[in-house]
Amino acid sequence: METEADFLALVKQISLLDSNLALLEWDSRTYLPRDAGSFRGDLIGMISEQELDLRMGQKMGQMIAHFTDHPDELDTKGQQVLRLVKRDYDLNHNIPAADYSDYQRVVSDAQQVWETAREEQDFSRLQPYLEKIVAYKKQFIPYWRQGQATPYDVLLDQYEPGMTVAQLDPIMETLKAGIAKIRQTITERGTQPRVDFMRRAVPEDVQEKVVRETVQRLGYSFAKGDLSRSTHPFTVPLNRNDARITNRYAVHDFQMSLLGGIHEAGHGLYMQNFNPDFDYTPLADAPSMGLHESQSLFNEIFIGRNVAFWQGEYSRFQQATGDIFSDIDEPTFYRGFMFTQPTLIRTEADPLTYPLHIVVRYELEKALFNGETTVAELPALWRDKYQTYLGITPANDTEGILQDIHWPGGDFGYFPTYLLGQLYAAQFYHAMSQELPVAEILASGDYHRITDWRIKNIHRLGAALTPAQLVQQVTGEPLNPQYWIDWMTATYERAYQVGH
Amino acid sequence: METEADFLALVKQISLLDSNLALLEWDSRTYLPRDAGSFRGDLIGMISEQELDLRMGQKMGQMIAHFTDHPDELDTKGQQVLRLVKRDYDLNHNIPAADYSDYQRVVSDAQQVWETAREEQDFSRLQPYLEKIVAYKKQFIPYWRQGQATPYDVLLDQYEPGMTVAQLDPIMETLKAGIAKIRQTITERGTQPRVDFMRRAVPEDVQEKVVRETVQRLGYSFAKGDLSRSTHPFTVPLNRNDARITNRYAVHDFQMSLLGGIHEAGHGLYMQNFNPDFDYTPLADAPSMGLHESQSLFNEIFIGRNVAFWQGEYSRFQQATGDIFSDIDEPTFYRGFMFTQPTLIRTEADPLTYPLHIVVRYELEKALFNGETTVAELPALWRDKYQTYLGITPANDTEGILQDIHWPGGDFGYFPTYLLGQLYAAQFYHAMSQELPVAEILASGDYHRITDWRIKNIHRLGAALTPAQLVQQVTGEPLNPQYWIDWMTATYERAYQVGH
Repeated sequence: METEADFLALVKQISLLDSNLALLEWDSRTYLPRDAGSFRGDLIGMISEQELDLRMGQKMGQMIAHFTDHPDELDTKGQQVLRLVKRDYDLNHNIPAADYSDYQRVVSDAQQVWETAREEQDFSRLQPYLEKIVAYKKQFIPYWRQGQATPYDVLLDQYEPGMTVAQLDPIMETLKAGIAKIRQTITERGTQPRVDFMRRAVPEDVQEKVVRETVQRLGYSFAKGDLSRSTHPFTVPLNRNDARITNRYAVHDFQMSLLGGIHEAGHGLYMQNFNPDFDYTPLADAPSMGLHESQSLFNEIFIGRNVAFWQGEYSRFQQATGDIFSDIDEPTFYRGFMFTQPTLIRTEADPLTYPLHIVVRYELEKALFNGETTVAELPALWRDKYQTYLGITPANDTEGILQDIHWPGGDFGYFPTYLLGQLYAAQFYHAMSQELPVAEILASGDYHRITDWRIKNIHRLGAALTPAQLVQQVTGEPLNPQYWIDWMTATYERAYQVGH
Repeated sequence: METEADFLALVKQISLLDSNLALLEWDSRTYLPRDAGSFRGDLIGMISEQELDLRMGQKMGQMIAHFTDHPDELDTKGQQVLRLVKRDYDLNHNIPAADYSDYQRVVSDAQQVWETAREEQDFSRLQPYLEKIVAYKKQFIPYWRQGQATPYDVLLDQYEPGMTVAQLDPIMETLKAGIAKIRQTITERGTQPRVDFMRRAVPEDVQEKVVRETVQRLGYSFAKGDLSRSTHPFTVPLNRNDARITNRYAVHDFQMSLLGGIHEAGHGLYMQNFNPDFDYTPLADAPSMGLHESQSLFNEIFIGRNVAFWQGEYSRFQQATGDIFSDIDEPTFYRGFMFTQPTLIRTEADPLTYPLHIVVRYELEKALFNGETTVAELPALWRDKYQTYLGITPANDTEGILQDIHWPGGDFGYFPTYLLGQLYAAQFYHAMSQELPVAEILASGDYHRITDWRIKNIHRLGAALTPAQLVQQVTGEPLNPQYWIDWMTATYERAYQVGH
């Protein structure tokens, strides 16, 4: 006889192993000695295997079957947990184990080859691996498919449950048109900002101190977190009392370091405020990748690039950095901060042009899985689309199609979540503005009313609602890209002094 | 049918879980956020339980029984592993599980109560807990006993296999007499060193940089290690490619920080140089606590307090610390570094008086377990012995019997290993001096011949030999405290300028 307590105990064990794996991952990227990789690999392998055995094993299968037949034996929380656990179980347990294991080996090899291909600026080295990965994904899609309209919808759904090509296609068109219009306006009628001071040297420890103080004011708690250094910034999903973040610092790029830290602290803030009742269950998570990203991008863009925020913060920033910016006034600083131009590398893009990088990848992935193109054709299509949407063409594959690890990592359908994060954040910002005097609060330097609003309306709910339910509940309507267009239009027209 | 490969695979699983626990411990003491303790406790509980199940479970019992009957089915390494695994298994599997679990609860409570007792300077609060711990230990000793002469020998053997009261009693007498003689000589015929500069402020990051550079020159590899900060310095037994150490820094006590870092790096150096063939087995360890400590104390005392070492290092130290010590010459510095006086707190003692702190604890533990005293009598005995051996009496229990966590932690028989570490180190130093021009090497600043000697003769061997076998093999004779007396006599007479 399975009871709800047995079920939640099994789920807790999985959650503990997941947090153990998250700690190993954090350590591997922060403090692990250079030579310790092979020992670490063995340990991660053993714990991952345990985790997989519990998550996909016979006992879990029996529990899911039993409670699916007897939902009345679970309370509300138990039913919510069952929905998430069942989704994960159904997704994976039908794939033939030998094929999946072969696929994982190809992905592992592909990531190695990707490094070499980048060094040699040569997509053709990676191509056979990508072809195998795509072939495996196409083989798996029928096992995963649960009524989705197209094969690519199946992949989208794995990162952003419920998201479809039918929803994304018009969104992409709206964004392409909207961004083109903003770019045209500021080019024709705006004033280019001064940017020379953006490369001034700021010592790394000064940058770190600024990040530490800023994210604390934005609600991130160091009693439940930590800020260490790593090559690429990330947030570690341990638990709500251990939501550590990392950041990187470049002496001549304080903006990257500052916004990078604020970004990760948005993920961290989300995690620190899940409902404690959700501890040790998959409810202690965002409903989707896009929604997790909405909270980091809310911090990074809608606060970190907000003119009202800098009106309040700039004097503090000047003080913390000594004399470095004493000759730069706040309006000049803010305009420099908001400089926009098309770039080849996604991760270096400003928020206005960023969606175009996603549009390129979305269109290619969709074509690939819905049967309209092949891996071999991708590099040429990539160059064409960058020329069409951003007006620039990569000189080689390394600054083109080889820039991201996602495809060699098997992550097709993931890129749109970065864009959805921006759209969700804009829509949440709009909803919050209906209830709070946001500009006034931001300019005051005391952000707790904004933090409280986010916690109450979004963070605390964890993964209890689906993405679409959460957006509807918080904003009163489905996802609508117009809020993003409106915010960007107003923000860039102000920064570029259009009409002044 | 059990094979050697099955046996080593089981041992490897245990080793991986042990390294996972070691990482959790390291993280708990370095970067774990303040509020994350309860989540961390749950994770450690689960992994510990897994580890115990493998180590003490039915499968391990069957393996041990089988290979004990068929040693010919194991090669040399397999037999060495069997010896260590069997020792651990035999030690624990006969204790009634319920009693052991009750004991663990008492120990856990006692450590909490110890904190309060210290705050209130009141041994009587801890007394009933210590009485329970001692009663449990006395109940367990018959299960553990394998021919040892006295009950206290059984406890000694758990930390230092093969060590006995019969060996330690005369050693303690030799040390008491030897130390008294050195102290008398330097008091009557020596010159007190100048010590005022020892409290000069040295910024923590400068101290950390000095530690980092010094331990690297002493052979510690940062490609296989890390130096983070923690309240109490320690070394983490992960694996030979991940032998991370921690240290603490006090602005006005550079000596503590420097010697503390050098001490931990000695443990780390040991671990980094175990024979790779011993990976994932208990052979990748020192043969005993005392021998592990011999390598940290070799670094700290026999190098870190060696006059030849400072003749080579001091100019580097002066340069690294800026102008702070520019008015202090090397002989003055070294003499200040070697200042000795009796103190109440063991962990703050200098190397000459340190053994007396251990003598006190050894005599009390021995009396307690061999039926000559009771827990209630310990505080008075403690005060008497401090007065007799060190000439000072603690004003209260907090600076007396309550200073160490070992007894409330259930660790009776552990203290002698600290002293044995010093004696082993002195004897190794003497043996090395027969083969290498040690003073010349130390003064040169290039220590690799010393490091290589230690690796080849000690570190690489791991736990393949027993402590007594290792000492015999490396030095050609059994443990002999005279080498320690000789080194201390020469060193302190020089530092105190006896006969000048």
